[in-house]
Amino acid sequence: MSTPIGPTDSSLVPRFAGPATFARLPRIDQVERADIAVVGVPFDSGVSYRPGARFGPSAIREASRLLRPYNPGLDVSPFADVQVVDGGDIAVNPFSIGEAVETLDEASSEFVQAGTRLVTLGGDHTIALPLLRSAYRKYGPIALLHFDAHLDTWDTYFGEPYTHGTPFRRAVEEGILDTEALCHVGTRGPLYGKKDLEDDRRFGFGIVTSADVMRKGVDEIADALRRRIGDRPLYVSVDIDVLDPAHAPGTGTPEAGGLTSRELLELLRGLSTCNLVGADVVEVAPAYDHAQITATAASHVAYDLVSVLALNHGG
Amino acid sequence: MSTPIGPTDSSLVPRFAGPATFARLPRIDQVERADIAVVGVPFDSGVSYRPGARFGPSAIREASRLLRPYNPGLDVSPFADVQVVDGGDIAVNPFSIGEAVETLDEASSEFVQAGTRLVTLGGDHTIALPLLRSAYRKYGPIALLHFDAHLDTWDTYFGEPYTHGTPFRRAVEEGILDTEALCHVGTRGPLYGKKDLEDDRRFGFGIVTSADVMRKGVDEIADALRRRIGDRPLYVSVDIDVLDPAHAPGTGTPEAGGLTSRELLELLRGLSTCNLVGADVVEVAPAYDHAQITATAASHVAYDLVSVLALNHGG
Amino acid sequence: MSTPIGPTDSSLVPRFAGPATFARLPRIDQVERADIAVVGVPFDSGVSYRPGARFGPSAIREASRLLRPYNPGLDVSPFADVQVVDGGDIAVNPFSIGEAVETLDEASSEFVQAGTRLVTLGGDHTIALPLLRSAYRKYGPIALLHFDAHLDTWDTYFGEPYTHGTPFRRAVEEGILDTEALCHVGTRGPLYGKKDLEDDRRFGFGIVTSADVMRKGVDEIADALRRRIGDRPLYVSVDIDVLDPAHAPGTGTPEAGGLTSRELLELLRGLSTCNLVGADVVEVAPAYDHAQITATAASHVAYDLVSVLALNHGG
Amino acid sequence: MSTPIGPTDSSLVPRFAGPATFARLPRIDQVERADIAVVGVPFDSGVSYRPGARFGPSAIREASRLLRPYNPGLDVSPFADVQVVDGGDIAVNPFSIGEAVETLDEASSEFVQAGTRLVTLGGDHTIALPLLRSAYRKYGPIALLHFDAHLDTWDTYFGEPYTHGTPFRRAVEEGILDTEALCHVGTRGPLYGKKDLEDDRRFGFGIVTSADVMRKGVDEIADALRRRIGDRPLYVSVDIDVLDPAHAPGTGTPEAGGLTSRELLELLRGLSTCNLVGADVVEVAPAYDHAQITATAASHVAYDLVSVLALNHGG
Amino acid sequence: MSTPIGPTDSSLVPRFAGPATFARLPRIDQVERADIAVVGVPFDSGVSYRPGARFGPSAIREASRLLRPYNPGLDVSPFADVQVVDGGDIAVNPFSIGEAVETLDEASSEFVQAGTRLVTLGGDHTIALPLLRSAYRKYGPIALLHFDAHLDTWDTYFGEPYTHGTPFRRAVEEGILDTEALCHVGTRGPLYGKKDLEDDRRFGFGIVTSADVMRKGVDEIADALRRRIGDRPLYVSVDIDVLDPAHAPGTGTPEAGGLTSRELLELLRGLSTCNLVGADVVEVAPAYDHAQITATAASHVAYDLVSVLALNHGG
Amino acid sequence: MSTPIGPTDSSLVPRFAGPATFARLPRIDQVERADIAVVGVPFDSGVSYRPGARFGPSAIREASRLLRPYNPGLDVSPFADVQVVDGGDIAVNPFSIGEAVETLDEASSEFVQAGTRLVTLGGDHTIALPLLRSAYRKYGPIALLHFDAHLDTWDTYFGEPYTHGTPFRRAVEEGILDTEALCHVGTRGPLYGKKDLEDDRRFGFGIVTSADVMRKGVDEIADALRRRIGDRPLYVSVDIDVLDPAHAPGTGTPEAGGLTSRELLELLRGLSTCNLVGADVVEVAPAYDHAQITATAASHVAYDLVSVLALNHGG
Repeated sequence: MSTPIGPTDSSLVPRFAGPATFARLPRIDQVERADIAVVGVPFDSGVSYRPGARFGPSAIREASRLLRPYNPGLDVSPFADVQVVDGGDIAVNPFSIGEAVETLDEASSEFVQAGTRLVTLGGDHTIALPLLRSAYRKYGPIALLHFDAHLDTWDTYFGEPYTHGTPFRRAVEEGILDTEALCHVGTRGPLYGKKDLEDDRRFGFGIVTSADVMRKGVDEIADALRRRIGDRPLYVSVDIDVLDPAHAPGTGTPEAGGLTSRELLELLRGLSTCNLVGADVVEVAPAYDHAQITATAASHVAYDLVSVLALNHGG
Repeated sequence: MSTPIGPTDSSLVPRFAGPATFARLPRIDQVERADIAVVGVPFDSGVSYRPGARFGPSAIREASRLLRPYNPGLDVSPFADVQVVDGGDIAVNPFSIGEAVETLDEASSEFVQAGTRLVTLGGDHTIALPLLRSAYRKYGPIALLHFDAHLDTWDTYFGEPYTHGTPFRRAVEEGILDTEALCHVGTRGPLYGKKDLEDDRRFGFGIVTSADVMRKGVDEIADALRRRIGDRPLYVSVDIDVLDPAHAPGTGTPEAGGLTSRELLELLRGLSTCNLVGADVVEVAPAYDHAQITATAASHVAYDLVSVLALNHGG
Repeated sequence: MSTPIGPTDSSLVPRFAGPATFARLPRIDQVERADIAVVGVPFDSGVSYRPGARFGPSAIREASRLLRPYNPGLDVSPFADVQVVDGGDIAVNPFSIGEAVETLDEASSEFVQAGTRLVTLGGDHTIALPLLRSAYRKYGPIALLHFDAHLDTWDTYFGEPYTHGTPFRRAVEEGILDTEALCHVGTRGPLYGKKDLEDDRRFGFGIVTSADVMRKGVDEIADALRRRIGDRPLYVSVDIDVLDPAHAPGTGTPEAGGLTSRELLELLRGLSTCNLVGADVVEVAPAYDHAQITATAASHVAYDLVSVLALNHGG
Repeated sequence: MSTPIGPTDSSLVPRFAGPATFARLPRIDQVERADIAVVGVPFDSGVSYRPGARFGPSAIREASRLLRPYNPGLDVSPFADVQVVDGGDIAVNPFSIGEAVETLDEASSEFVQAGTRLVTLGGDHTIALPLLRSAYRKYGPIALLHFDAHLDTWDTYFGEPYTHGTPFRRAVEEGILDTEALCHVGTRGPLYGKKDLEDDRRFGFGIVTSADVMRKGVDEIADALRRRIGDRPLYVSVDIDVLDPAHAPGTGTPEAGGLTSRELLELLRGLSTCNLVGADVVEVAPAYDHAQITATAASHVAYDLVSVLALNHGG
Repeated sequence: MSTPIGPTDSSLVPRFAGPATFARLPRIDQVERADIAVVGVPFDSGVSYRPGARFGPSAIREASRLLRPYNPGLDVSPFADVQVVDGGDIAVNPFSIGEAVETLDEASSEFVQAGTRLVTLGGDHTIALPLLRSAYRKYGPIALLHFDAHLDTWDTYFGEPYTHGTPFRRAVEEGILDTEALCHVGTRGPLYGKKDLEDDRRFGFGIVTSADVMRKGVDEIADALRRRIGDRPLYVSVDIDVLDPAHAPGTGTPEAGGLTSRELLELLRGLSTCNLVGADVVEVAPAYDHAQITATAASHVAYDLVSVLALNHGG
Repeated sequence: MSTPIGPTDSSLVPRFAGPATFARLPRIDQVERADIAVVGVPFDSGVSYRPGARFGPSAIREASRLLRPYNPGLDVSPFADVQVVDGGDIAVNPFSIGEAVETLDEASSEFVQAGTRLVTLGGDHTIALPLLRSAYRKYGPIALLHFDAHLDTWDTYFGEPYTHGTPFRRAVEEGILDTEALCHVGTRGPLYGKKDLEDDRRFGFGIVTSADVMRKGVDEIADALRRRIGDRPLYVSVDIDVLDPAHAPGTGTPEAGGLTSRELLELLRGLSTCNLVGADVVEVAPAYDHAQITATAASHVAYDLVSVLALNHGG
C-alpha cells in the first residue's frame, strides 16, 4: 500500500498561497484511492430563514489553510496514516430540492460504496438525509449524534418534506436510523410547541441541551454519548449553529446560549473510539461570518472528524 | 375625497422611533383607499448566485425612515397629493417558485384591479413577471424600462423557467409586453455569448449601456427613453445592481462599472411625464450591504417612483 | 376571558416576512387588553461613550423574528397563557434628558396602572429610572436584580443627574427601591475608585461578579439571588453589556471578561418563581453589532423575561 | 520668523507608527505659534438620526496618517510655508448642547483672536454656529459655502434651537453671515416641504444641487462660486454627507445621489484664490464607516482646506 | 490546433460550486499549452502601510466566479479564441523581498519564454519589476501604462530598494522600459515634495491625473494614450487603488478622489488595438474589502486585460 | 517622591475626546520618571499568515480609553501608586526583521536599564525575543509564562530565524530563559508533527492546554503556575490568539477552542504575587477585529499586567 500523499508543504508554499483544497490536501484526481474524502455540497435551497450556506464549502476550505498535519488533541497524524483527499464539490440543482437530494444521494453513495468515508461540508442541513441514506446502504441502520441548536425533526414547511428542519424525521420514517442510538446535543432555544419534544422523543432521540453541557462538563456528556452509541456505525452531523452566535455568527438560524467551540471540539474528541462511518458540518453562511470565525470553527470540526475517522480506519 | 393620511410626524416621533413602514406611511388597514401602495415581496428562491434578497423589503423600509414628504427633484409632495400607503408584505412559498409566482400574481392583481398602483420592493427579479402580468390585465401591453446590469432575458437555468434571470423573456413569450417600447438601461458585464444579445434584440429590447450613460449624460438618455415610451402604460423595473457595486454592494450578482445613484435617480426623474403604471426595485440583499447604502439607494429609487406615480395620478 | 392572540403563523407567513413586531406578536391596538407588553424606548442621549442604542428596539425586534412560541427552558408557552403584545415605541425627546424621563415615566405608568407588565427594550440605561418609578407607584418598594458590567450607581456626569451611569443611585435616593433586595450581577472591569464600591454597598447593593458566576456556576448564584429577593416585587434590568463583548459587541461601553449568553439565560430562568413585575433589556447599539448576535441575545433575554412574567401572571 | 516644524519624518517613523495627530503634525504645545490649527470637536448631541460623530476627530486623524506634505493639486507644501499644528480636541459637555456651544465659542475664539485659522474636525454640524461666531468677531460678516446634502436652515427640532439641522438659520438670525454670499453645494434629497426652500432663499442662500454639479461640471460651478464670494472673508463648512453614501457611508443622515470625492476635492481646489478664514468638516460617524473610506475622504478635505488657507496666508 | 478548453459549464455546475480558478478556467496542468495565463503572486512584504495583499489572488479568483465567457464591451469571447488558463500561484519567500523578486523573475520568465502572456494578480506592486524584466527579455524595451493613485517611482524606503513604491524607478534604472512611452493614469493625492514630480518626469513618465479623466472623458484620454504607445510592446500595470476608495476600499494606501470602475474599464477597453504583452492587477487587500467590491472590480479588470490580449493574439 | 501624574480626568474631558494614549495616561515626556511604561511596537513583518498587527498599538490604545483608574479585580489603583506612562511607539524597520529586532533590543533596554518596567503592545510575536533579551540583561534568566494558542518554539520559516513562530526557541538557545520555569498556557490546535511537542518539552516548557483550563478551572491552573514560577523574575507574554476567535477575531492565526477573556484575565490576576518584570500583549490585527472586541480584550490584558506590576513595584 502506497504512502498517502499529504498536504502541500508549507515550508515551500506559504499557507496563504496555492489552491484552497481542504487543509491543502490533494484533489481526489491526484491520488489512486481515498480512504477519507472531504466533499462540499454548495446548496441552501432548504433553508427557512437566512440563506447563504451555498458558499459554506469554499469558506470552510479557505479557513482550513491553517490546519496543520498533527492533531495533538487526539495524538494522530490523520493525513499520514490514511489517504485523505479533497473530493471537490458535489454540484446539485439549486431550484429543485428533490432533484438535489437525488443527485447527492447518488454521488455520495459512489464514494461510500467505494470504501471512502465522507466528511461533508454543507450547505444546509437538508443534505444530511441523502448522506444518511448512503451510509445506511453500506452499513445498515445508523447511530446518529446530532449537534445542533435545533431538533430538525419537524415534519414539513410550506408543504415541502425536504428542508433543513426535517432531515432526521425523514430518516426515521425511512428506517435508516438505529433508533436505539440517536441523540441531539447542544439543543436550545424556543420551539413551536411541546409536541415538538414529544414527537422527537417518540422517534427515539435523546436530548443533551446546551445548558446540560455547561452543568455536567464535556467529559460526563461524552461518556454518556459513547455508552449510548456503543460500537454501532455512527454518523455525526454538526450544524454549526450548535455553537453560540459568538462563536458562529455565520449561520442561518442563530440561537443565543450555545456551546463554545472548545466544548464542541472536546466532545467530538471524546468520540475517538466510536465506529464513525461518516460526518458532516453544515449551515456555515459566510455572508454573516466575521473574520472567518465561523469557518475556522467549522474547519476544526471537520479536521477532528477526519481525525476520528483516521483513528478508526480499518479498525 | 378625503385628505390623504401622511407619514408619522417627525416633530413628534423621531425618525428612528416607531414601526418601519415605508417612509413611515400608514399601513393599508389604516386608510380607506390607496392610490399607490408600496408592497414587499420577501422572496429570493429564484437567484443564481448570492441569495438574501428575502430580507430586502425590511431593509429598504428601515432605510426609508429618512425620507421626507417633499421631493424637490420633481417639485411634488407625493404623500399629500394622493394616498400612498405601505401595503405590507406579500408572503409567498419559499420552496416553490411556481406557487410563489401564482400567489404574487393574484395578490398584486387584487391591488391593481382596485386601482392601486404598486411600487414593489423585492425580493429577487423573478417577481417582475407576475407583477407585469397584473399590470397587463389592467392596462394591456406594457412598455418596459428595465434598469439592470443584466438582460434578464435568458431562457432557463437548471431547467427552471422562472428565475431572476428570465422574467422578461417569459413576459415577451406571454405577449404581455409592448415590444415597441422595451429598453434595458445600465447594462454591462460579460454574457454567455453573442447570442444573448441577438435573442434580446429579437424580443424588441433596446440597450443603453452603463458606459452610454457616462458618455451621453442622463438628459440625452432620458430624452431618448421618453421618446421610445411615448404615452404607453409604462412599467419600470429597477434591479439595484444597475448601480455600481460601490453604490450597491448589497446585491446578488454585482458587476463593476455601473451607474452612480445620482445618475439613476436623475434618469427616473426624467420619466416624470410618462404614464407610469407600476414599478419595482429588486435584488437588495442586506447581508452584503454596508451602513445601509444599498437600502438607502433603493429607498430613494422607490420614493422617486412613487413621486412619478403621484405626478401622473388621474392624468 | 378571551383566548390570547398569538404571533403570526409561520406556516403561512415565513419568519422573514411581515412587520417586525416583537416575536411577531400582535400590536397593542389589535387586542382588547394586554397582560404583558414589550415596548421600545429609542433613546440614547444619556450615554457616556458610544451612542447608538436609539436603534436598539428595532434591531431587537428584527432579531426576534426567530422566536418560537414554546419555551422549553421554562416549559411554558407564554403567548398562549397570557396576552402578550408589542406595545410599540414610546417616543421621547432626544434633546432633553429631563423631558424624556418625564415622558417615559408617564407613558410607562399608564401601562403599569392598567395592569400590563412591561418588558422594555432600550435605549440606554437612563430609562430604568422612570420605569422603576412606575413600578414603585404600582407595587411599592421594588427589589432589583441588575445584570450589568457596571454598577450604574455613579452620581452625576458633566453635571447631569440622569445618565446611563446613574439610574440606580437616583432610584435609591428617591426611595423607590427595597434596599434589602438589591444586587448587581456580572459586574467587572475597572472603576473610578474604591469609593465607587463603598457608595454602592452603602446603597444596599450586593455584587455578584462575572468571575463569581464562572467559579460558582449559575445554579448556586441563582439560588442565592432567589433567597435575597424572596417574594418581593422584583424588577430585572439587563444591560446587554453584562455579556462578554464576544457575545454582545453591539453595545456602548464594552468590558472584557463578561458572562456568556448561556449563563445569562440560565440565570434568568433561575428566577422563574420570583414575583417579577417588570424588566428591561438595554444598551443594544446595533451599529456595533455583527450578524445580529447582540440583538439575538437581547431578544432571547426579553423572551425569557416575558416567559417568567407569564409563569407568574395572576400568582 | 522661524521655519515651521513639519510632520514626523516618514523615512524614520513609518506612517503607521507614532501618535495620530492630524497629518502627523506637531501638537500645538510643541510650537511657538500656529498659523493654522486643525482641531477636533468630539460632539454629536445635536444629531437627529444616527449618532456617532463624537468619534469623528480621532477617526479622521487616524486616516490622515497617509497625508504627505506636498499637495500637487494646488502646487503647495502647506506645512512648509506656514506653521500648521494639531490643536487637539476641544472638549465639550455631551449633555448640554447650550453649554457645549458656549465652550466651543470661547475656545475657538481664543485661536481665532490669536491669528490662528482653524480647520475644525467634527463632531456634528451643530458646531458650525459657534465657529462662525468666532470668525465673525474677528472678520465681520462672513461669506459661507456650505457643502451638504441638506440645507441645515431648519428652525428647531423637539424645541431645541441648536441642532445639526439648524446652525445656518441661527447664524443668519444672529447677523453674522454676509447674506450676499451664501451658497449650499451638493444639496439633494427630500425635504419637509416647499417652505424649506422658500425660507432658505429668503435667508439669502443659493443652491447648487448635486445634480447641477454632474450636469455643469466642477469648473463651471467653482467659477460661479468664486464670483459669488469675491474677496469676502469666507468660511467653508463641509458636511461629509455631501458625498454620496458610496463615498461616505460613515455619516448620520445619508442621502443617495451625492457628489463623488473627486468632485468635492476639485471644487475645494477651485476656491484656492478665495479669502478663506476658517473651515470645518463634520458628520463623520466612524461606526458606520468601512475601511476608513469616509475618514480618508474627510482627511483629504481637511488637507485641501489647510492648503487653501496656507496659500492665502498673509495675502 | 486544438479547440481551447473553456470554463466550467455553469449550466451543469452552479457558479458558486467547484474550485475557484480564475473565471472557472482550467488549471494549467489540464491543458496542453496556454496562450494566456492568469497567475497569482500572494506577496505583500513590500508594502509601506496596510498589508494584506497576500490574500489578493484568492479573493480575486473567488470574485471571478461570476465572469461569463463573452465580453460585449470588446465583442470578444476570449476563452473561445485562445487558450486561457489559471496558472496557479507563484509561491515566493515572504521574509526576503530580494529572494521573492528573483523567484518571481524566473517563474514568470518561464511562462513568457514559452509564449504564454501573463495577467498577474497581486500581491503588492513590488511584483511589477520582475514581471517587467521577464517581458523585456522577451520583447525588448517595454511601453508602460501605469494605472495608480501613486507614482511608484520613489527611490528607497527604509533602505529597501524593492518595495511597492519603487518598481518603476528600478525599471527605468535597469533600462527595461521604453522611456518614450510611459504614462501614469489616475494619479492623485499628496506627495512628499515637488521633486517627486520632477524625478518622475525626468524618467519619461507622463501623468494623466484622476481629475483629468473626469474633465476630458475616457475617450479623449484613451486616444492620447494609444497615440503615445503606438505599436510598442505594452505592459499595463493596474494598482487597484487607482479606483476611488468607494470602488476599491480593499487596498493598502487609499486616496480619495479616484476613478470609477466604469472609467477604468472603459479606458482599458480603449487599448484594445494595442500590442499588449503582459499586465497585472495588484494591491487588492481583502481584509479591507466589503462584499467583494474591490475583488469584483479587480476581476473585471483582469478579464478585460485578458480580452485585449486575446484580441491581439497572433496579431 | 512626587505624586504620580494620572490619566486625563474624565469628568472634564469625555473619554472619547483627547489623544489616545494608553488609558489616557501622560506621555513619557510629561513626567520626570516612569516606573512602568506601556509602549507600542508597530511591526508585523514576522508573521506567517494574516498580517496587520502593525496597527495593533494604536487600536489597543483607542480601546483603552474606557479603562478607569481603580482595578477591583486586584484591589489596586495602579496609576496612583506608581508612575505609569505611555512610552509611545518604538519605530522599527518594516523591511528588515534583523534590524527591527536590534532596534527594539536597544530601545527596550534603555527603558529597562533605567528601571522602567515595560508592558509592550505588539506588533507580532517576533518582538518578544528582544524584549526578553532586555529583561535578561537586567534581571538574569527569566521565567516565562506564554499565553498563546501556539508554541512559538518552531525553528525557522523560509530560512528566517526571527519570526512570530520562533521567539522562544531563539530565547532558549540564547540562554536567556530560566528553563525551570517555562510554561505555555492556552495551547491548542494542530501542529506540524509530534516532534514539535518533543522539542518544546526538551526546551523545558510545560503546557497547559486550553482544554485543561476548562477542565480544571482558573484557580487550580493559576496555583500550579505560581508554584512553577516561584519568585523568579517573570515575563508574561500574551498572544491575543490564546483567546477563542469569538473573543479575539482580530488576530493573524486564529484557532478554534480557545480561552474566554474572563479566564485569561482571572489567570493573570492569579499571578498578582509573582515577581513580574515585563510583559507584552501581541498579535492584535485590527483589520480583522469587529467593534474593537479584540482591542478591548487586549487593553484589559495590558491593564491587568500593569496592575500586577504596580502591586509588585519596589517589592
